[in-house]
Amino acid sequence: MKELFEKARSTSYKLMNLNTRVKNEALAAIARKLDENRELIKSENEKDLKAGLEAGLSSALIDRLRLDDKAIDSMIKAVNEIKEQTDPVGSVVDGYKRPNGLYITKVRVPLGVVGIIYESRPNVTVDAAALCLKSGNVSILRGGKEAIHSNTCLGKIMAEALAEAGLPEGTVNVVPDTDRFRVTEMLQAKGYIDIIIPRGGSELIKFCSENAHVPLVKHDAGICHVYVDKDADIQKALKIVRNAKVQRPGVCNAAETLLVHEDAAGAFLPVFAELTQKDGLELRGCGRTLAFIDVKPAADEDWSTEYLDLILSVKVVSSMEEALAHINRYGSGHSEAIITENYTSARQFMDRADASAVFVNASTRFNDGGEFGLGAEIGISTQKLHCRGPMGAFDLTTTKYQVYGDGHIRE
Amino acid sequence: MKELFEKARSTSYKLMNLNTRVKNEALAAIARKLDENRELIKSENEKDLKAGLEAGLSSALIDRLRLDDKAIDSMIKAVNEIKEQTDPVGSVVDGYKRPNGLYITKVRVPLGVVGIIYESRPNVTVDAAALCLKSGNVSILRGGKEAIHSNTCLGKIMAEALAEAGLPEGTVNVVPDTDRFRVTEMLQAKGYIDIIIPRGGSELIKFCSENAHVPLVKHDAGICHVYVDKDADIQKALKIVRNAKVQRPGVCNAAETLLVHEDAAGAFLPVFAELTQKDGLELRGCGRTLAFIDVKPAADEDWSTEYLDLILSVKVVSSMEEALAHINRYGSGHSEAIITENYTSARQFMDRADASAVFVNASTRFNDGGEFGLGAEIGISTQKLHCRGPMGAFDLTTTKYQVYGDGHIRE
Repeated sequence: MKELFEKARSTSYKLMNLNTRVKNEALAAIARKLDENRELIKSENEKDLKAGLEAGLSSALIDRLRLDDKAIDSMIKAVNEIKEQTDPVGSVVDGYKRPNGLYITKVRVPLGVVGIIYESRPNVTVDAAALCLKSGNVSILRGGKEAIHSNTCLGKIMAEALAEAGLPEGTVNVVPDTDRFRVTEMLQAKGYIDIIIPRGGSELIKFCSENAHVPLVKHDAGICHVYVDKDADIQKALKIVRNAKVQRPGVCNAAETLLVHEDAAGAFLPVFAELTQKDGLELRGCGRTLAFIDVKPAADEDWSTEYLDLILSVKVVSSMEEALAHINRYGSGHSEAIITENYTSARQFMDRADASAVFVNASTRFNDGGEFGLGAEIGISTQKLHCRGPMGAFDLTTTKYQVYGDGHIRE
Repeated sequence: MKELFEKARSTSYKLMNLNTRVKNEALAAIARKLDENRELIKSENEKDLKAGLEAGLSSALIDRLRLDDKAIDSMIKAVNEIKEQTDPVGSVVDGYKRPNGLYITKVRVPLGVVGIIYESRPNVTVDAAALCLKSGNVSILRGGKEAIHSNTCLGKIMAEALAEAGLPEGTVNVVPDTDRFRVTEMLQAKGYIDIIIPRGGSELIKFCSENAHVPLVKHDAGICHVYVDKDADIQKALKIVRNAKVQRPGVCNAAETLLVHEDAAGAFLPVFAELTQKDGLELRGCGRTLAFIDVKPAADEDWSTEYLDLILSVKVVSSMEEALAHINRYGSGHSEAIITENYTSARQFMDRADASAVFVNASTRFNDGGEFGLGAEIGISTQKLHCRGPMGAFDLTTTKYQVYGDGHIRE
């Protein structure tokens, strides 16, 4: 790995001022090669699927692992979308002349070497490599052992495409073995890797947080709330809360807790409970909720649980202040929504709920790189440092001051 | 401390959407109160100076500790400059409508709670509090034990000013005791403190890096280079290299290594050596340097040493490529300069030297918040994540997506 890290570091200096056209041609070559190698990809993927079935992986995991033509189409589409995006590198963020004539500019530059540690989905290999390439970064990709044949194959196809486009060898690196120790080596490769993005379950995130010497940007838990205000349009509220919870309950931007203003509870809760009974939704209510609907009582730990399941905790509040206090105490800084027709409540909520994305009259499910128009995403940052929310190519850059003088010295 | 942290967290939610006018009035009140309390500040500072002298602090440390009228003037000036700056909070970074009509904006918001851990200079107490206030953050300030009387006094004066301006109690917090354990408590206050900025010597930075559970932005070592290109104007080069090393050798943006193109070495090195002999500068040269000037030979460790002293290592290189390779290997990502009249060399160097700030024909000593026009700075970030270079109020903010719908659900 030491050799791979050193190569990555030196390659990163070659990518720093690559022209957008060169990067886009490489992305086009990747898309084309993926299309040309469909049979190879499927046959290598078949080995992973077979091993997965033998190892008794759940059908959900097998499903994530599968690369059929539809999944290959999606990868190609993501690469093409990333190609079409504006290149963040070279964008001038600020520029001005100082009184002494010194001309100061602040420009976007690549981070350098980006490590991605992820689990079963092999499409992440292509998404992450493409986003890193677009932003001028070397990528070191360490996927799960379940997907090793698929990932290695995708890595080879991309390497061929990059060589054809004239990019340096070692621009995209798929870690060739799945020894758990490789993860630790990456986490501790200070000076070689500039940022690591772990993508996966809470165990992986925890392991990375505890062992990283390299800066991490984390895609952590999503404890998301929808607050139905006293001035909510009840029809919109029913539709949005149901969507936020039921449409895909196992994902991070699904709602886990519903907060309802006491003045709206009577009109909203019984209808909502009836509506979602068909969906098989389990509600767990606070003491005040039980006066409106007959559901299981919520325990204290419900407010800080990410169910990732068809369960929703419900709390009746006396004011938006109480809703905001609850959100800022129990929320994980992911996605928060208010349903209201009241202008002032909307404005207050948007400023005061502390999260990567806040919504008025829209489902939390929209907190997603694709829905925000970023093309693929490399994760949703729930931390405040460096970047927040869905991370695309822009978030894989940093800034640099470029200062132009004419013999300037400091007095 | 737990109580202080909880109070800070809850206060941070109150500061999130404070109007610029309110924050500026509070800054004006701080400047006024500092002016009104000069005698008190000086008499409290006298206690620290006396204790410092008794403890045998060096005259340099005593000097940093001293708050005379000139130092108080500087603090007042910094607060007023910060007041005059544009408020970063609320600035709309991006905004667009998606095909489904969802209106997405990305806006700058405060980080929340900012911790500063610093050493002897008591003026940091005021600079840091003012920058945090401007950016809508609660500050927790933990200065050195040598300055405890001065810092406590400045904290009380600022608290009075904030109360007068109607800001919540606990907006600015000076940690009231200097037990070393308080530093550890701050570093581990995950969920309460959003970012910690350590300012001080390498021991402090190392301790913070090893013990932090809270994200850090570090002001680390400055191993800065000046490269004299083959097409350098020798007069500019002499002036700039001397300034970069000699004007103030003990600071992070001073040069530590001089790289000279072999074609410029004959014209430059002998004159430079003679010129800086008067300054008492010690040169340590590579093998090729010794052919041009009679100086002490450099050892391998010289290339990675931050002297912070009147010592400069010198290396003759055969090309700009070699200079860039040396810089990217040994530099600490702080400040790098090229002296050249060649347009293409300048352009290449600016893109390919990997540092927070790169300079053409200007001294590395300009890498400074004041010189860049940011008012006071809270440090110079040598890391790539979150922010890079001199950190002002802007860098104490993050972004948040604010999304406006009209009953939008995800299909």
